[in-house]
Amino acid sequence: MSKKRAATAPVSVVGLGLMGQALAAAFLEAGHPTTVWNRTAAKADRLVTEGAVRAGSVAEAVAASPLVVVCVTDYAAVRELLDPVAGSLEGKVVVNLTTGTSTQARETAAWAAGLGTAYLDGAVMAIPPDIATDAAVLLYSGPKAAFEEHEATLRALGPAGTTYLDTDHALSALYDMSLLGIMWGILNGFLQGAALLGTAKVKATAFAPLANTMINVVTEYVTAYAPQIDEGAYPAGDATMTVHRDAMVHLAEESETLGVNAELPRFFAALADRAVADGHAGSGYAAMIEQFRRPAA
Amino acid sequence: MSKKRAATAPVSVVGLGLMGQALAAAFLEAGHPTTVWNRTAAKADRLVTEGAVRAGSVAEAVAASPLVVVCVTDYAAVRELLDPVAGSLEGKVVVNLTTGTSTQARETAAWAAGLGTAYLDGAVMAIPPDIATDAAVLLYSGPKAAFEEHEATLRALGPAGTTYLDTDHALSALYDMSLLGIMWGILNGFLQGAALLGTAKVKATAFAPLANTMINVVTEYVTAYAPQIDEGAYPAGDATMTVHRDAMVHLAEESETLGVNAELPRFFAALADRAVADGHAGSGYAAMIEQFRRPAA
Repeated sequence: MSKKRAATAPVSVVGLGLMGQALAAAFLEAGHPTTVWNRTAAKADRLVTEGAVRAGSVAEAVAASPLVVVCVTDYAAVRELLDPVAGSLEGKVVVNLTTGTSTQARETAAWAAGLGTAYLDGAVMAIPPDIATDAAVLLYSGPKAAFEEHEATLRALGPAGTTYLDTDHALSALYDMSLLGIMWGILNGFLQGAALLGTAKVKATAFAPLANTMINVVTEYVTAYAPQIDEGAYPAGDATMTVHRDAMVHLAEESETLGVNAELPRFFAALADRAVADGHAGSGYAAMIEQFRRPAA
Repeated sequence: MSKKRAATAPVSVVGLGLMGQALAAAFLEAGHPTTVWNRTAAKADRLVTEGAVRAGSVAEAVAASPLVVVCVTDYAAVRELLDPVAGSLEGKVVVNLTTGTSTQARETAAWAAGLGTAYLDGAVMAIPPDIATDAAVLLYSGPKAAFEEHEATLRALGPAGTTYLDTDHALSALYDMSLLGIMWGILNGFLQGAALLGTAKVKATAFAPLANTMINVVTEYVTAYAPQIDEGAYPAGDATMTVHRDAMVHLAEESETLGVNAELPRFFAALADRAVADGHAGSGYAAMIEQFRRPAA
């Protein structure tokens, strides 16, 4: 019964970039009547072939469904598109999956509150091809009732990873940024390694399996360090900050010797140096939190 | 029978820092007659209680076993300890698990070759508590016969993750550095996020499970980007470099607004900016390999 309800709940998608197209396709696939709009109308062509209704304007898209999902370039674009139709947003639930800052999320929430619109700020932690698969994590913050009303529909985008965070609209943006920071951290680390190993003719495809083994191992460190961060005590159960700093310098030297970019390890070593200088020479890596909590001098 | 042989093969461990102690304990646990030496002799006390033999000198440690595992501060310390006993290293297998550069590994291999010593350069991709568990990855490069001769003994350190790479002694150091770079990348990304979310009173322990979900998802990107890196073609199946760069700037702005350190996202954005400037605005993230392959201007 809830499946039937989910499949018949209409939804509109505003913005059909790579991600917006994947979102609309997932709603269609789950059987939802789906209305789509994009500034460049041709981006809707494939979706229309698959059963989507092409809205002639943002106003038409908003009018078509009680749930309006927006995924555009930035928050300025969100307001640029929705301000002209503000009068028709009362009673709607707007889910904004555009990437932005927590300040923008709170500002947009205040703007929506003034219109009588239930506003959910969301974040998509997935690449477009993973939408609708169990690899897709989607985070939502804002009024819980609005989330629960449309949870069945939203779950079409990530059956396993649809996650409600908090009434504070800022949290999905903060988690989004925080998780992206981890993603770039991993990818840049992998690219540094691929560049380094490339000098010895090791292919990135040969490196990837061991890289992924390491990535999985580090989830255990994350789990171990998190309570240390919360408690402000950083025992060196494993390597000390001095050992880490020295190994970072090794990586930088290795990179320089082999003619690859050494900026990333140099930057890491500089941060670790500050932790050592702050009295954490014998602490574990979690002590680095103190460097991240404060702005650079 | 091979188990029996493994368990009776003697091994000496030189260097009893946190890691050296874990290595020696693993050999003991597997039943190997284990001789240990450390400059500060007291670090051997617990191991001796558990059955290890305390060597009075490096010479005694080397004399005690055909397999000598060295794990000290750096390669200078390796040579400082082994040069005085160089005459007794002929016919021995020396496994050096000290962290260092590929150049140091090749130099040490050349030195060992001059002594008639079979030299394996190794890397421990694990924290001491994970030694002897399936979470421990240990990498070895150098003469394959020497590895195979002692593989059963070495496997006590990582039953699942004991990996022979190549005859080129440089590879374990290169992989070591490369995998550590990934580890720091993840941890620094996590710390950036923990600092950011901490401003909204989200605890690191609350953030860790989603962080680890994201970390696992990124292994799929690594697998997807690796062949693109090898082929030099970077189609944007997901977000383009422009989208990544803009999101990095968002993370930096978010960090600055909330009073946490913004250096990491600023650095990432600067690298991404260069990729965009190089004509990769519409490419996928794998295009960043070109920035890592060359020294900073």
